Amino acid sequence: MSASRFPAPVSAVALAAAVEDGRTTAAEAIERSIAAVEAHDEMLSAFVATSFDDARAAAAVSGPLAGLALGVKDIIDTAGMATEMGSPLYAGNRPRADAPVVALARRAGAAVIGKTVTTEFAYLQPGPTRNPARLDHTPGGSSSGSAAAVAAGLIPLAFGTQTGGSVVRPAAFCGVAGFKPSFRLIPTVGVKCFSWSLDTVGVFGAGVADAAYFLAALTGRDLRVDTVAPSAPRIGLVRTHLWEEASAEMRQAVETAGRLAEAGGASLVDIDLPGLFADAFSAHQVIQDFQAAQALAWEYDHHAAALSPILRDALTLGRMLTPADYDRARRTARQARLALRELFADIDVILTPSAPGAAPEGLATTGTSIFNRLWTLMGTPALNVPGLTGAGGLPLGVQIVAPFGRDRACLEAGRFLERQLSGA
Amino acid sequence: MSASRFPAPVSAVALAAAVEDGRTTAAEAIERSIAAVEAHDEMLSAFVATSFDDARAAAAVSGPLAGLALGVKDIIDTAGMATEMGSPLYAGNRPRADAPVVALARRAGAAVIGKTVTTEFAYLQPGPTRNPARLDHTPGGSSSGSAAAVAAGLIPLAFGTQTGGSVVRPAAFCGVAGFKPSFRLIPTVGVKCFSWSLDTVGVFGAGVADAAYFLAALTGRDLRVDTVAPSAPRIGLVRTHLWEEASAEMRQAVETAGRLAEAGGASLVDIDLPGLFADAFSAHQVIQDFQAAQALAWEYDHHAAALSPILRDALTLGRMLTPADYDRARRTARQARLALRELFADIDVILTPSAPGAAPEGLATTGTSIFNRLWTLMGTPALNVPGLTGAGGLPLGVQIVAPFGRDRACLEAGRFLERQLSGA
Repeated sequence: MSASRFPAPVSAVALAAAVEDGRTTAAEAIERSIAAVEAHDEMLSAFVATSFDDARAAAAVSGPLAGLALGVKDIIDTAGMATEMGSPLYAGNRPRADAPVVALARRAGAAVIGKTVTTEFAYLQPGPTRNPARLDHTPGGSSSGSAAAVAAGLIPLAFGTQTGGSVVRPAAFCGVAGFKPSFRLIPTVGVKCFSWSLDTVGVFGAGVADAAYFLAALTGRDLRVDTVAPSAPRIGLVRTHLWEEASAEMRQAVETAGRLAEAGGASLVDIDLPGLFADAFSAHQVIQDFQAAQALAWEYDHHAAALSPILRDALTLGRMLTPADYDRARRTARQARLALRELFADIDVILTPSAPGAAPEGLATTGTSIFNRLWTLMGTPALNVPGLTGAGGLPLGVQIVAPFGRDRACLEAGRFLERQLSGA
Repeated sequence: MSASRFPAPVSAVALAAAVEDGRTTAAEAIERSIAAVEAHDEMLSAFVATSFDDARAAAAVSGPLAGLALGVKDIIDTAGMATEMGSPLYAGNRPRADAPVVALARRAGAAVIGKTVTTEFAYLQPGPTRNPARLDHTPGGSSSGSAAAVAAGLIPLAFGTQTGGSVVRPAAFCGVAGFKPSFRLIPTVGVKCFSWSLDTVGVFGAGVADAAYFLAALTGRDLRVDTVAPSAPRIGLVRTHLWEEASAEMRQAVETAGRLAEAGGASLVDIDLPGLFADAFSAHQVIQDFQAAQALAWEYDHHAAALSPILRDALTLGRMLTPADYDRARRTARQARLALRELFADIDVILTPSAPGAAPEGLATTGTSIFNRLWTLMGTPALNVPGLTGAGGLPLGVQIVAPFGRDRACLEAGRFLERQLSGA
């Protein structure tokens, strides 16, 4: 199947500037997104539900996000429309309030245009969304609809969440920017919990500067990277103990990204992660599963038959973990976080794969988060940088990781790399 | 008004043993709690709503909490009954799922008997609950109904939450054990958020061993302190920079508690907190208000007129805080957490007031959390130890604080002190 039918991704920065300059109006910009969703989502299946009337009403709100249509992953609460979690258990579930991130986006003028497809409770059971680059490939997950809708040019901005790799991976598979900020930089309140130590709300935009613009507007922090040329970072290339799990073209993509960064003036050193980080990689699973078995205790105890087998099995295994297993995993994570600070002593950011390769064929799985879990556990900012393409026209994403709290450094380095990849 | 009409507090440990031994049945125990609520809650106003049929059905579930009626603070989600947050904005709000702590309690056999009164969104605007020791005094807040219902002997166990002092303070005012575990030992998922860095679910029981028994059943951890005699702890008496804010009888109560602990073999040293901790005390307010302004953004933006003036003003002030203010407060908190570890080098626990004094007269305020906020910010376990009484028959609570993660040490020292206070 061809994907040529979809519009090009819409830059939030460019659209916001056009609204501000009066080259278009917020109302017109929102109507264009509505028209794009109406024209293309039947093919893409990125949306669970739409809220066009709400979106139109938002045109009256001024702010940095005025005119920008926003997709909200369907595990994030929205007042006045259902939040169904990708599960039949939550059909018609109508929370009273917006999640804080949604309320903050509306404050800044964003137009919530609909709820985007999530895997079941943001775990592994896929929804119907297709990859706009090739419709017979997965868009990745769990923020499937958010990544696909931005990549297909239907909307400029979307919210996702990441517990393993649910922002960076679908961004990589679809070829857009997906940014997971430092843990708890923005609240997960009003977001269905899978693991309270890992769940992080993330943002999608056409490019790095667009995602940064969105996060700057949400937080009031100095995170925009579209206004000045980014400086060349000191990069550490981290292959991880999973390098052999990456496809040849992904390994090539990361090496290429490193060379192009060097060509632009960045420094590049190889960094070997100590064995502690392989232990931390494993600890992620223990922490996630132990917490998920509690976070979804009601669903498991009262409605196990309504859960997918893959989720039910994960929760059953999670229940078998002991507090001692969990405490050991938490200690490993803490040690790895301390060790990571030292690793960052002489570099600004890490360059590493966003995923093992391009989006797998078929819609039966959303791929794997093995190149994301460690960074989610570390709580560090992590960014998919789009721009490279593999065989068959599928995007290949590379990942930039910065120290905890250095979200701006992550975005700036990502913007730098993105420009190098595009030859700008 | 006299309080002699209320039954004596019910020990969860004793009742669970009676159920296990066959001296009573779970069904009988639950009926007794139902009868007590029916007889006395009109006077006490501890419950927002009851769920007697659900509670009766729970008699069929075996487990360590079988037969134990449980009150759930009304900011904690319960499936099948409303969760109204102490706010008209949430009248009739019916969440689909139990919060994980509720699901875990049900798994262990607990009988959820009703939702207990909370101040508005667990902030300062009081509900109707009275103090069972003296009906014209506040029970404290924000977990007002939970503390009062346990103290009045209506139920053996209850859930509360603490962001400033909302577990330890009402426990002190009502004369029961109230325990705030280490931050994130048990999940706050499904609990209305005020501040995601501070909100902690806590437990109430008649005495320290009862609260510990409840938490052990919830977590599967070795936290019971009823099975062996507690050993004598090394205690540091911490007056804090707010000592002069405590009443004469409270200062006396803390000194008395220290002397009685020494008489039982504990060591006691005075500890002066460095000035950093006064800064951390102030940082608590910044972090709480900055986060609350985001956590309640939907309520503030869309329904400000339905909020109490005291909450609305706090959220308005919270919105005026900058990310720089917030980051500075977080840095101070982190430094204080590190410094606290050193303070604990030669002691097991801290002894300090639970509140400035006994419960204030009147129901117009719930008192102040000035002796609790620092420990909530530190994330440490904190426990109100009941047993002392001041002028007019009102309870005077003293507080035990242990290092982060040393929940057992906190409970064991609290049990030790409780026995010393009672002359056991």
